[in-house]
Amino acid sequence: MRGRLRVEVPADSLFGPENMPYGVFAPPDGEFRVGCRLGDTVLDLAALLDDSTFARADLNAFLAQGAARWGEVRSRLRELADTALPVDALHPLPTVRMALPVRIGDYVDFYASIDHATHLGMLFRPDSAPLLPNWRHLPVGYHGRAGTVIVSDTPVIRPNGQRRTSSGTPIFGPSERVDIEAELGFVIGTASTLGLPVTVDEFPDYVFGVALVNDWSARDIQAWEYQPLGPFLGKSFATSISAWITPLAALAEARVPLPTQDPEPLPYLRGDANHGLDIDLTVTWNGEVVTRPPYSRMYWSPAQMLAHLTANGASIRPGDLYASGTISGPERSQSGSFIELSWGGTEPVTVSGAQRTFLADDDEVTITATAPGTEGRRIGLGAVTGRLLRAHTD
Amino acid sequence: MRGRLRVEVPADSLFGPENMPYGVFAPPDGEFRVGCRLGDTVLDLAALLDDSTFARADLNAFLAQGAARWGEVRSRLRELADTALPVDALHPLPTVRMALPVRIGDYVDFYASIDHATHLGMLFRPDSAPLLPNWRHLPVGYHGRAGTVIVSDTPVIRPNGQRRTSSGTPIFGPSERVDIEAELGFVIGTASTLGLPVTVDEFPDYVFGVALVNDWSARDIQAWEYQPLGPFLGKSFATSISAWITPLAALAEARVPLPTQDPEPLPYLRGDANHGLDIDLTVTWNGEVVTRPPYSRMYWSPAQMLAHLTANGASIRPGDLYASGTISGPERSQSGSFIELSWGGTEPVTVSGAQRTFLADDDEVTITATAPGTEGRRIGLGAVTGRLLRAHTD
Repeated sequence: MRGRLRVEVPADSLFGPENMPYGVFAPPDGEFRVGCRLGDTVLDLAALLDDSTFARADLNAFLAQGAARWGEVRSRLRELADTALPVDALHPLPTVRMALPVRIGDYVDFYASIDHATHLGMLFRPDSAPLLPNWRHLPVGYHGRAGTVIVSDTPVIRPNGQRRTSSGTPIFGPSERVDIEAELGFVIGTASTLGLPVTVDEFPDYVFGVALVNDWSARDIQAWEYQPLGPFLGKSFATSISAWITPLAALAEARVPLPTQDPEPLPYLRGDANHGLDIDLTVTWNGEVVTRPPYSRMYWSPAQMLAHLTANGASIRPGDLYASGTISGPERSQSGSFIELSWGGTEPVTVSGAQRTFLADDDEVTITATAPGTEGRRIGLGAVTGRLLRAHTD
Repeated sequence: MRGRLRVEVPADSLFGPENMPYGVFAPPDGEFRVGCRLGDTVLDLAALLDDSTFARADLNAFLAQGAARWGEVRSRLRELADTALPVDALHPLPTVRMALPVRIGDYVDFYASIDHATHLGMLFRPDSAPLLPNWRHLPVGYHGRAGTVIVSDTPVIRPNGQRRTSSGTPIFGPSERVDIEAELGFVIGTASTLGLPVTVDEFPDYVFGVALVNDWSARDIQAWEYQPLGPFLGKSFATSISAWITPLAALAEARVPLPTQDPEPLPYLRGDANHGLDIDLTVTWNGEVVTRPPYSRMYWSPAQMLAHLTANGASIRPGDLYASGTISGPERSQSGSFIELSWGGTEPVTVSGAQRTFLADDDEVTITATAPGTEGRRIGLGAVTGRLLRAHTD
């Protein structure tokens, strides 16, 4: 024991005591365990709270304890943030390594931005109405690959795959249209029972918190493969998530009304928990800000996505992840993907002085986000960063 | 210790010493652990082999040990099958409970039957060519929900969901078109590395064995939701698999050439391990045989499905499951789904004297299968059975 210290956090920090996201970290000399971020310090929760729930390399055991326990721990940590803490339980952020924060059971990706769905419809199906008939009636979604969800800062290898050539014959090789999708991910805490739906208003009992997500997408692979069963290898090579999970409780000030839903959703998609989130994202490409997607414009609420996902009786497990789908606004500068930003690759954007459409080898993309806190302050979500490495060759 | 006994297996048993599938069972007074089926007896492998790998409620630890170890254990068990075994390690099949044999990471479902894909194309998209342009170039597949894969004999609750009415407006309620899909599932044993593909010829190093699968499908929910991201709630309410996993090694005599693939697949889908499997399935509906799907007609090989799944660098983990998609032959009596058997519900079939199309509450469906063994004998796959219960109401 080396005494006690109060963690100093500047008043304008995005990671002050009203944020306090959770992650899994390892100090230079130690094993992975659960931590909480306060300013630029990581608190070792197993040490600080003397609780073995946190002495493991994922958040799943804590998630499974349920919403009442999440509230207790959060209250306790906010109290402790105002006191001197044992130095042995404190680690400077730059000294730690971060791991995937949750062991993910199932990963579902939605398509909840009306602007993104409209833009992709125009690009992928130019000869028909961009929004399909079901889109305004249900949150369209599909299952992605849980086993290839990786933590921020893990490199991504350019995928090989089949793509169609202009002659109509497919070839196999490195994707030429690797893209990003800036999304918000929702981490399930509480398990549900197979056969029983989770209602809209049960949302806060089941969802623990949010992560930033980059759902890397190979547009040429996707365009060739996706009919009729949906995206598969165009997505499954990697999905990056932030190392920090912000608890829903930290986003209370970010709640905003949803945009008008027309037609009115069916009764199972109605409820008081149907709010949006006023979260502003920023996407940087090789260090240059290229777009600022607004989450507040998302058509379907997080609670509606969960109610829909479970409406057929499908069960959820602690650590399951569902993401919003690409967050785009109506303006080009609010694009959550580069296929929208460069309009299908036909209108290059200038990045570091060069004309660019899709990702080149060694490009790095970082997504950050902030949301309103109390008294005019803002809180930050954990960043999600990834660098694209060249394709594998035999 | 109550002495030793030789397990007697009739010469015409489908579960003789050349089969010996693995499962997870619990004796009446004990906990779940790994067993091996010999005739109508379950061998307790932790007790028999004095190996804690088998003293757990899933096969994953054994799967992760790799193909050389699978071969050693199989050889040892085939030797032991000829000897007197400790009575305490033997359990009569009717006395044990069975559990899901593997902890499934990711579940992928393919669409590898050309007859099924053609039939579904005709039924779902009557105005266009039934087989889409990509179908003969790659094994079309998508991710399903791993968390709702259940073991044979678990009841299935009729799902609620959105379906379109004749007016075009969707309503929410119990599906009226619950169907089966008779499939073969492949259980991954060995993990691969993120970024590196598994080649066709590495198939036997990575795939441990096969299960029978019933991929329950709500056709009305599926038809409304599946554009453009593929099936979601129409499938995710339940997928049943057999309690017994037959090791690939037991299916050596079932290898047959694939049907002709035209055009020739791209190089990454070629290899010596591209064989089919001569497995005959039987589907019974409330005890009456209604169809006999032939696996031997499947267009894409199991090795091609795995090579495609990993071609983009997606990694696989022990316990991952991929299924073939519905197994159908060209004849109505070879349908692997009831939507084909009843031609979209327009041509009812007679079951127990009544005219039937899709499943009614309390219907029970069982899928069984046999394959060639040595010397003219046959081996059986574990059955997959499920009963449909009425929908949940508030």
